[in-house]
Amino acid sequence: MITARSFAAARACARSPLLRPVQHQRRSLATVSSTLFPGEPSAPHLVTSAIPGPKSKELSDGIGTFQENRAHGFVVDYAKSQGNWIADADGNVLLDMFAQIASIAIGYNNPDLIALAKTDEFITATMNRAALGSFPPTNWQELVETGLGTVKPKGLSQVMTAMCGSCANEIAFKAAFMAYRARERGDKADFTADEMQSCMKNQSPGSPDLSILSFTSAFHGRLFGSLSATRSKAIHKLDIPSFNWPVVAWPDVKYPFSQNARENVEAEKASLAAVEEAIVSSTKAGSSYGPVAALIVEPIQSEGGDNHASPAFFQGLRDVTKKHGVFLIVDEVQTGVGATGSFWAHERWNLATPPDFVTFSKKMQAAGFYHNVESRPSLPYRNYNTWMGDPTRTLQARQIIRTIQDHGLVKKTDEVGNYVYKALYDMIENGAGRGKVEKLRGENAGTFLAFDGNTPEVRDKLIMEMRKQGIHMGGCGEKAVRLRPMLVFEQKHADLFLEKLEKAFGQL
Amino acid sequence: MITARSFAAARACARSPLLRPVQHQRRSLATVSSTLFPGEPSAPHLVTSAIPGPKSKELSDGIGTFQENRAHGFVVDYAKSQGNWIADADGNVLLDMFAQIASIAIGYNNPDLIALAKTDEFITATMNRAALGSFPPTNWQELVETGLGTVKPKGLSQVMTAMCGSCANEIAFKAAFMAYRARERGDKADFTADEMQSCMKNQSPGSPDLSILSFTSAFHGRLFGSLSATRSKAIHKLDIPSFNWPVVAWPDVKYPFSQNARENVEAEKASLAAVEEAIVSSTKAGSSYGPVAALIVEPIQSEGGDNHASPAFFQGLRDVTKKHGVFLIVDEVQTGVGATGSFWAHERWNLATPPDFVTFSKKMQAAGFYHNVESRPSLPYRNYNTWMGDPTRTLQARQIIRTIQDHGLVKKTDEVGNYVYKALYDMIENGAGRGKVEKLRGENAGTFLAFDGNTPEVRDKLIMEMRKQGIHMGGCGEKAVRLRPMLVFEQKHADLFLEKLEKAFGQL
Repeated sequence: MITARSFAAARACARSPLLRPVQHQRRSLATVSSTLFPGEPSAPHLVTSAIPGPKSKELSDGIGTFQENRAHGFVVDYAKSQGNWIADADGNVLLDMFAQIASIAIGYNNPDLIALAKTDEFITATMNRAALGSFPPTNWQELVETGLGTVKPKGLSQVMTAMCGSCANEIAFKAAFMAYRARERGDKADFTADEMQSCMKNQSPGSPDLSILSFTSAFHGRLFGSLSATRSKAIHKLDIPSFNWPVVAWPDVKYPFSQNARENVEAEKASLAAVEEAIVSSTKAGSSYGPVAALIVEPIQSEGGDNHASPAFFQGLRDVTKKHGVFLIVDEVQTGVGATGSFWAHERWNLATPPDFVTFSKKMQAAGFYHNVESRPSLPYRNYNTWMGDPTRTLQARQIIRTIQDHGLVKKTDEVGNYVYKALYDMIENGAGRGKVEKLRGENAGTFLAFDGNTPEVRDKLIMEMRKQGIHMGGCGEKAVRLRPMLVFEQKHADLFLEKLEKAFGQL
Repeated sequence: MITARSFAAARACARSPLLRPVQHQRRSLATVSSTLFPGEPSAPHLVTSAIPGPKSKELSDGIGTFQENRAHGFVVDYAKSQGNWIADADGNVLLDMFAQIASIAIGYNNPDLIALAKTDEFITATMNRAALGSFPPTNWQELVETGLGTVKPKGLSQVMTAMCGSCANEIAFKAAFMAYRARERGDKADFTADEMQSCMKNQSPGSPDLSILSFTSAFHGRLFGSLSATRSKAIHKLDIPSFNWPVVAWPDVKYPFSQNARENVEAEKASLAAVEEAIVSSTKAGSSYGPVAALIVEPIQSEGGDNHASPAFFQGLRDVTKKHGVFLIVDEVQTGVGATGSFWAHERWNLATPPDFVTFSKKMQAAGFYHNVESRPSLPYRNYNTWMGDPTRTLQARQIIRTIQDHGLVKKTDEVGNYVYKALYDMIENGAGRGKVEKLRGENAGTFLAFDGNTPEVRDKLIMEMRKQGIHMGGCGEKAVRLRPMLVFEQKHADLFLEKLEKAFGQL
């Protein structure tokens, strides 16, 4: 249900001066220090006429003898990469604004992480991998409480660790299904004999026909449950059996938000109404899919094309899921850990009640989900596996969080993001990008920025042209360029990026 | 189809003197050196009257404030654990025959692994995590070829890395489904518009109704695809939606194999016939499940109770899957990496043609699957994800493999396993275990040994009694004790275990 409050908030947001496009000024951002990587390169270093160069190609061909290599961009010399700069096998050094598909947070060879790697605590944890759910190490409580625990989303007290974004989402699905059925059982907490037997045959009632609701162009992973909620591209899904789970159209909003407030409110209302309709009809006789136990949503649809919605939309999702007893899973695998200018992207929604589950991975290096004590399974061993996460990555996550906090990298990313957004806005509206790219996204979203090529070919050409200029970028969706710099991306890097982008536009 | 050849082989196997129970002799095993951990304890060190002790309990309660703690055995001091010995938070030191649910290969704080952790190569790989499918490191080919590549199962040339056993199985499922559909398409390699559109709605033909066939009491993981193939216990499956995939009864064999050859051959024939029936009927109109694209099987069903079958059975599975164009996935997540006395358990089947997929994880620390170039997807990005495995664990896997080879640990495990099997046989048939435990399994299976308590309560009591004696063991299935020592488990450890087990039987 869409409340009057939520849409008032959306309109206020749209009127905010923060979101109004302003003329770009090359002012200096006071809080952006340059102390993190004092020895970083100041400019790209290009030694081959094309990237991948001959050495990259040779190494990639070698890998191709034993595994898929057709998705290789180039082969990387990680030892020589530093901060925001990625070095390839041929000796090229590029400004990295893709960061291993948005999963490097604080720069290559960050000295804090290198120091961590040499500690006894790290070596012990890494080389003696615990089955965390049964034989946790003595420091586990302290490690989680001083690391992942310090960035618990507001209102969530529990954390379960996992291996990657896909499995973080899947174990959150499992927790949601168990909690949904527990609520249905009420006081009758015991499983019935019928449930115990039927689940062994993958049949209801033990294996219930419940569903997860997701949005068109959503990406939530590639394993069998998460892929059933993923709707990004056919290539991700073809030939793989899927659960018959429902999908609702992502709001067809226009950018920039601040100039399309009225239409966007209507688009979001339509999507919210469709969500409610999908949930309500799922419990009716004759529904082609089972009752919706949870809705999963990305704060910004990333792999699917960098699609945004307003805080009011997410408030509406919280309202409608709450109303119908559907769990809300916020997939922060790509948006989490500071890149949007707040530690969690969903912080900016100002929800009246927290999401039920918040999943993470990528820049956190550790994966998992936050939740509440109410959604713990009724019995041990229900949401369980051998490793239950990875102590190595949990230690790394703690250091990443500490480094982010020590250097104020979230605030810095917010500022640098606004700076880049405004410059890009000028360049696309009135400058070199005009008529070549469009639909700039990322107002008030840190460095989590994107724009579309006029065609997929223009997008692909721009990415290759930028690589020739020494800037490494990634695409997403059909024709979008997505910027995913690290949190150590500073004004000087932004200025270099903007300068090279202007040149690249000239080559299109 | 069951060939005459395969059953002749089974009978030969059953007649083999290796498999005939012999009187246990405390002979010395010449090849078992004691040089790996010269400073290892020689006896348990017990300081609390029960395990978990007070410190373990306190730490576990602390963890319980933010995550599930009811499956905790005890809390571990990994820094103080060494070789085969696990130290707990209270200062107890136990002989570890469970090894983090069968996932520690070469001992706690193995000096080779500690040395690896300090190398620049390791630190660079760990702290600069690559998106391996797109930006592999310059050493990737060399790393894989000198590590995972050196233990490729015979006949398989390709390897894809993953994060854990569940996702190794699931990406093997995906590869199998894609290869199955590719074969159906034949020369018409392009996807149809209908496939492209329907898969976005999770509907056929783009999301085809294909299935994976598995066995009763199988365990293949806990994510949505792998859990649909898992049939171990209701607690693993309750409340989780599952694919409607078929299941066939595991052969109802008797132990020891060598004394029940005739009945076991019949039981295995019945199971093979049921497999063929399930496959054939899956393609007929009116089948309640879709065509079987792949069959997945563990060489020894582990989590489901340590259930064995003969090489002839697996030869029969290869024959029948080959006959009907069904891919054979051998799940070596728990059996792989030496514990059964060969590097891969399926080596002992002497298959005429290799399995199509062999999955691994646990003791390898790295996870993934081996396969053939024919089962590569038609296009890149089809079986893809951000990390595509973990360079940290791939480096660790290489060192584990090297250490195993340097010290001949597979042969050693084979010898020690036979030694323990014979001693256990005596103890259960004629000694202290008689009438208390039964069904010893593991003839000619290295240290991958198991036996049942007469009741689940006897099993549980025995495990707790052994803990009091300073021996840490694990259970599986309904009432089995499974022995999962590391590959550095030597005769001296075996003798200690047998001595304590004899005492523990006296306490039952």
